[in-house]
Amino acid sequence: MKLAVVGGGSTYTPELIDGFARLRDTLPIAELVLVDPAADRLELVGGLARRIFARQGHPGRITTTADLDAGVDGADAVLLQLRVGGQAARLRDETWPLECGCLGQETTGAGGLAKALRTVPVVLDIAERVRRASPGAWIIDFTNPVGIVTRALLDAGHKAVGLCNVAIGLQRKFAAILGTEPADLHLDHVGLNHLTWELGVRKGGPDGEDLLPGLLAGHADRIAAELRLPRQVLDRLGTVPSYYLRYFYAHDEVVRELGAKPSRAAEVAAMEQELLALYADPALDEKPALLASRGGAFYSEAAVDLASALLGTGAGRGSVQVLNVRNRGTLPFLPDDAVVEVQARVGGSGPVPLPVPRLDPLYAGLVAHVAAYEELALEAALRGGRDRVFRALLAHPLIGQFDRAEGLADRLLAHNREYLPWA
Amino acid sequence: MKLAVVGGGSTYTPELIDGFARLRDTLPIAELVLVDPAADRLELVGGLARRIFARQGHPGRITTTADLDAGVDGADAVLLQLRVGGQAARLRDETWPLECGCLGQETTGAGGLAKALRTVPVVLDIAERVRRASPGAWIIDFTNPVGIVTRALLDAGHKAVGLCNVAIGLQRKFAAILGTEPADLHLDHVGLNHLTWELGVRKGGPDGEDLLPGLLAGHADRIAAELRLPRQVLDRLGTVPSYYLRYFYAHDEVVRELGAKPSRAAEVAAMEQELLALYADPALDEKPALLASRGGAFYSEAAVDLASALLGTGAGRGSVQVLNVRNRGTLPFLPDDAVVEVQARVGGSGPVPLPVPRLDPLYAGLVAHVAAYEELALEAALRGGRDRVFRALLAHPLIGQFDRAEGLADRLLAHNREYLPWA
Amino acid sequence: MKLAVVGGGSTYTPELIDGFARLRDTLPIAELVLVDPAADRLELVGGLARRIFARQGHPGRITTTADLDAGVDGADAVLLQLRVGGQAARLRDETWPLECGCLGQETTGAGGLAKALRTVPVVLDIAERVRRASPGAWIIDFTNPVGIVTRALLDAGHKAVGLCNVAIGLQRKFAAILGTEPADLHLDHVGLNHLTWELGVRKGGPDGEDLLPGLLAGHADRIAAELRLPRQVLDRLGTVPSYYLRYFYAHDEVVRELGAKPSRAAEVAAMEQELLALYADPALDEKPALLASRGGAFYSEAAVDLASALLGTGAGRGSVQVLNVRNRGTLPFLPDDAVVEVQARVGGSGPVPLPVPRLDPLYAGLVAHVAAYEELALEAALRGGRDRVFRALLAHPLIGQFDRAEGLADRLLAHNREYLPWA
Amino acid sequence: MKLAVVGGGSTYTPELIDGFARLRDTLPIAELVLVDPAADRLELVGGLARRIFARQGHPGRITTTADLDAGVDGADAVLLQLRVGGQAARLRDETWPLECGCLGQETTGAGGLAKALRTVPVVLDIAERVRRASPGAWIIDFTNPVGIVTRALLDAGHKAVGLCNVAIGLQRKFAAILGTEPADLHLDHVGLNHLTWELGVRKGGPDGEDLLPGLLAGHADRIAAELRLPRQVLDRLGTVPSYYLRYFYAHDEVVRELGAKPSRAAEVAAMEQELLALYADPALDEKPALLASRGGAFYSEAAVDLASALLGTGAGRGSVQVLNVRNRGTLPFLPDDAVVEVQARVGGSGPVPLPVPRLDPLYAGLVAHVAAYEELALEAALRGGRDRVFRALLAHPLIGQFDRAEGLADRLLAHNREYLPWA
Repeated sequence: MKLAVVGGGSTYTPELIDGFARLRDTLPIAELVLVDPAADRLELVGGLARRIFARQGHPGRITTTADLDAGVDGADAVLLQLRVGGQAARLRDETWPLECGCLGQETTGAGGLAKALRTVPVVLDIAERVRRASPGAWIIDFTNPVGIVTRALLDAGHKAVGLCNVAIGLQRKFAAILGTEPADLHLDHVGLNHLTWELGVRKGGPDGEDLLPGLLAGHADRIAAELRLPRQVLDRLGTVPSYYLRYFYAHDEVVRELGAKPSRAAEVAAMEQELLALYADPALDEKPALLASRGGAFYSEAAVDLASALLGTGAGRGSVQVLNVRNRGTLPFLPDDAVVEVQARVGGSGPVPLPVPRLDPLYAGLVAHVAAYEELALEAALRGGRDRVFRALLAHPLIGQFDRAEGLADRLLAHNREYLPWA
Repeated sequence: MKLAVVGGGSTYTPELIDGFARLRDTLPIAELVLVDPAADRLELVGGLARRIFARQGHPGRITTTADLDAGVDGADAVLLQLRVGGQAARLRDETWPLECGCLGQETTGAGGLAKALRTVPVVLDIAERVRRASPGAWIIDFTNPVGIVTRALLDAGHKAVGLCNVAIGLQRKFAAILGTEPADLHLDHVGLNHLTWELGVRKGGPDGEDLLPGLLAGHADRIAAELRLPRQVLDRLGTVPSYYLRYFYAHDEVVRELGAKPSRAAEVAAMEQELLALYADPALDEKPALLASRGGAFYSEAAVDLASALLGTGAGRGSVQVLNVRNRGTLPFLPDDAVVEVQARVGGSGPVPLPVPRLDPLYAGLVAHVAAYEELALEAALRGGRDRVFRALLAHPLIGQFDRAEGLADRLLAHNREYLPWA
Repeated sequence: MKLAVVGGGSTYTPELIDGFARLRDTLPIAELVLVDPAADRLELVGGLARRIFARQGHPGRITTTADLDAGVDGADAVLLQLRVGGQAARLRDETWPLECGCLGQETTGAGGLAKALRTVPVVLDIAERVRRASPGAWIIDFTNPVGIVTRALLDAGHKAVGLCNVAIGLQRKFAAILGTEPADLHLDHVGLNHLTWELGVRKGGPDGEDLLPGLLAGHADRIAAELRLPRQVLDRLGTVPSYYLRYFYAHDEVVRELGAKPSRAAEVAAMEQELLALYADPALDEKPALLASRGGAFYSEAAVDLASALLGTGAGRGSVQVLNVRNRGTLPFLPDDAVVEVQARVGGSGPVPLPVPRLDPLYAGLVAHVAAYEELALEAALRGGRDRVFRALLAHPLIGQFDRAEGLADRLLAHNREYLPWA
Repeated sequence: MKLAVVGGGSTYTPELIDGFARLRDTLPIAELVLVDPAADRLELVGGLARRIFARQGHPGRITTTADLDAGVDGADAVLLQLRVGGQAARLRDETWPLECGCLGQETTGAGGLAKALRTVPVVLDIAERVRRASPGAWIIDFTNPVGIVTRALLDAGHKAVGLCNVAIGLQRKFAAILGTEPADLHLDHVGLNHLTWELGVRKGGPDGEDLLPGLLAGHADRIAAELRLPRQVLDRLGTVPSYYLRYFYAHDEVVRELGAKPSRAAEVAAMEQELLALYADPALDEKPALLASRGGAFYSEAAVDLASALLGTGAGRGSVQVLNVRNRGTLPFLPDDAVVEVQARVGGSGPVPLPVPRLDPLYAGLVAHVAAYEELALEAALRGGRDRVFRALLAHPLIGQFDRAEGLADRLLAHNREYLPWA
């Protein structure tokens, strides 16, 4: 089996490699190609990747290349984890919206739209080349905004699934609290990517006993602290929202906080430099501890589970996972072709969403509003034009006002012209 | 034919009477009962009403009573135009939300929720008594928030239709600009009460030529000025939003404006006193000019059209009007039992909504979000409890944040305890 | 010696009585008159006052009266602790400014101006009657806003000193932390009432060793927690601001907090009812523990120290206390007739401010700005008129903007008309 | 007479040259040196400057140089009109403060502090070199923030005067409205640079009749429109504030406006490119009309008047002009060594401020607050360090809150490191 990772030069990659090594029984990789145009990074990351495989006795071969077509040729699955514009663009996404009194964040709000506009055309181009080079390959998208990118891929007819580590992270946290195995917990995870709530935590399977009431009764303080939400939020909702919901439920407070401290620029840049310096050490043959504070925890487990189920290897086959898939009536108030993030059973022909309980209007209204924004965001990404950008911004529930949308549209274009050929 | 007007002591009533007099061919009223517990007002308003009928030679009889059951007995239709808590409650609705940085307004946002909580139980009680006293009578609800109140009435099995004067007012404005007859224009009016957009202005009938592009090209400045929206809004949308959309599209600006001037309390109270003083003049036998600045223009035309169509009198029968009715698939992303405000053909068995074009996601997302709020608002109105109030507030797109919803919930209860038996 | 307490029916009074009883060697009171127009309260409070004196064996006589002229007749000193408009007016002061996005607080900002406008004319009238009834009596003002009220009294030629418990409270806190006697600590306390900073904490006397650096190095967390300021504030300033500075240094955060919870109305009203119920118990002969959470701690000690020094009794004579007095060059950037809050040596002819070190521009700019506001506030209180109210509001550093000042002026007048004869 | 203009390559310079040509009787320049490190710009501007002189028959010689020491050698007066960091730095000053909810502007607020920090060290270095090259030369500072820069120059013992075109512009506007000669109007102009009010408009001389009440009664709408202030501001104040006061009186509104549109970057850059393209035309021999929209109107008149008076040439000698000079008791609530902007009589030994009427507390409080900020700003500029930057920010009346000051301090440093050797 051959896997290709596009954006393989990311400092995240050793986390992925470590998972591939640990879980090689589930996903027996024969060849792994790291594809990235940044040769320097790729060499450092590739070297460490090989040492990790070697130390753990993984028999697979790891190669690196800047040539996308060659890299994905014959691949069974292609993971997308690229970042158009790199950290520099992300850092701009985090700052200019603040000038308009709006959240500055890379996946939610105006910053997320900027990322979508930069990313969708690049991903569609990559997918097209994957289709030509390896017609049957699955595309696993880990590139944000996962919901919009996955929808773009599916609309263009690709065999694609969107993947996010929020659900698997919560599953691990809940398991740790309950002293049980993660695999023993199934989440009633419902919503859109980065806009989800855990409505239940089922023991043993999707229809098992719901442990969530007990979890909230006994451990709300701990859960709230990890999500950086006031405990009151858990008490009032009786469910566990994704920590991205903080950007909605405490929007103004977050904007104030972001305005009262420097952006994460220096911090992240410093961490990346430090990681790359560590990777350059030929004695290093495991993922360094520092990587844990980089985000993306459990991403490798999620990716292995998904690839295994899609490709029919190991224990993953037919398993139930939280994924970004076509709605097809799962949330009846959304169009069938919307992309939702829910539990799905994954077989060789792809994921099939499980039914979900009726979504409380308290969540459904917000989900419908954001889904409408996502539709306009995708339209703007595909067809361009300031007017479409403006409309997507106005449609976002965190923006919604004309003067904000105007100010944001101007800034989005000014800061992203090099990535938007039509601008 | 007998009509009863509950809240008939309102200073609005002469506008209604004037319409009944002018349009007596459409709606031949034999008996009109004004029902109101405020005896003083009722006497003044009733006196003027009779003089208006007399001057215009209307043969119908006008009576007044504080006894609801007697007043509605045998009525063919009952108009609801009451205001629970009066201007005093409304003025509080307009101020306390400002303390939390939120819009203070009587139908939109937290103030609208307060009004719904006060109003729904009272209206349901009235409707129940109407049902007993006059089983076949139609209930025409002009009491705000019309969408939520109408839904409450329909859910309880009443023969009810919700009526608002926004659409008829726009129809009149457009006709004046175009130099045509109002009846010649049909509006593609879509959304929820006080959350609507005119997507088209059809000449001659629902399928006629769309005059809206020309109207916007030639008269955008005038339309914008009347709606107090920047012209840019019309240019960007290419449609005409209800002026209530300003509370969404320019929310923060409105909050600033409201905080920079006194509430409308003194102003409205003064105007009402002045009107009542005028009404007391036994020589006055027409609606005074001052009434025009009181709001509610064309309400009487709308009410006559609707009653006539429902009761099968005159020219109204089978006509197409903008009304608040069950969704039944009209907006496919809303539940069938939601109440929407669209064009409907009205016959003796009630209104049937006409199909509407697919709603742009730019509007649909907001409509779905507000519809979800309305569902929770109705639940809070029917079942009470601070938690339900909190949830409805959090679900509103203009609120959406925990600390705002907490502050608003406390204030809503503190300012409305006398009207909320459960609080 | 005879003392009169105007506003003696306050629920605070038992705190004062308890201090008089404990400190009777410092201030040997022969007769104490509690003056208050609220007969019910006065009876309850007066009864408890007598029982406290009795239990502690104080030989002084306590009388109560609603007759101001009789009560202050022949008094050596008169304490003012009244509240024009009572808790109801205060609670309004705390809410309507929030509607304009401004702090709602009873001494700082727009609420403080409202209180000044209500209070100054009443206090000047009382002082005039004191002058006639007991020409040589000292007036000790504890009524807020103490700075403006004291200035009004001095400008009218009265023998007045302004007293606040912030400094004595900090002195007690510092002493507790250091394990020393309060009397052993002298504070370099500088600024205006409710706008002060402790620049030094001197051991043994005004020129003693400065213990503040050590206090901040070792106990900043504890001090910050008690002042509800982030510890960072202490670290950055290197001084200890009054907790009222939080209204400046964290204004927007405070406004958000106030908007996210109900006003203190119910809370304070409930506490007052509870206290009065306790006072009614004829078995109660000491101040109840609940009183500690009512505010005003150490007020009695401060009042005893001041009265003793002014009247030349006991140990207080010639002592150094923090008081509100004429500036006379103490802060060279303020006019000589401004009232400042600093350490002063108190003899029979009144307090004489001690020199203070040069005030850092970081504090001086804000002090000068607020002092200018206070001058305009006093002018508005003395001469009335919306324009003067507007000017005082605009001059306040927490307001400063035209639209805010307009909105606040309208609301201030609307909510205080009954106390402002000119409005 | 020799004049040097440091920053002579500015696109403003032709405005200056045009004034020198027109007013050569007042200021007979024999040699004019334009000094600028940007050789390209300097050549374009210098060429046009020579053609303007030639066309108007001015006999003076114009030279250009990048060598500061050579350029100022032997100069009688040196004009400073430089911009450290150029338009790029200014544009950053205008944007990052918005991220913290604060005004983004190049002379007021946090942006003004950034400019001061960049500019003061450079100007002091230039002045030192002027002192060595031409010991008796006057330094005329037009470089913003003029108040702080002039204070820095005077504190370092230089012969310096600060110049701003706000007052001369208002004088021209008033003269146009009144149909009189500008020289016939004297302004009671009081405050700090960019924080001034016209308290009177005197006819004929500093003690002449005050025309301001008449101007406001008859022309308030026109004046308000030109200052972009609501007319209400003029009505309420009864004086004419500098248009920079809008940043205080309507701070939040300005922040909203700035956040709702793109920064002036593209606009100004485009205009500068266009101007330079025009200057390159060898046929152009007058200042182009476009220059009028670049700002800085009447700067040349002000500079000629001042240089003439200082150097004792022509009619300027002994004249009264609005200048930035040492306070020396003019505003008694400010330190003597503060720099204020008032009318001064200018002789060969420099300007001597005229007495001003007592400043209303409504203005004095704000002036004192900003003056304290300026003192801390200068300290930060001279001595560096994040802590001093933080203190200056906290001291500014438009900032004043801890979290804002922290966020701004971080951003100021991050965006200006290349100009701040200590950062």
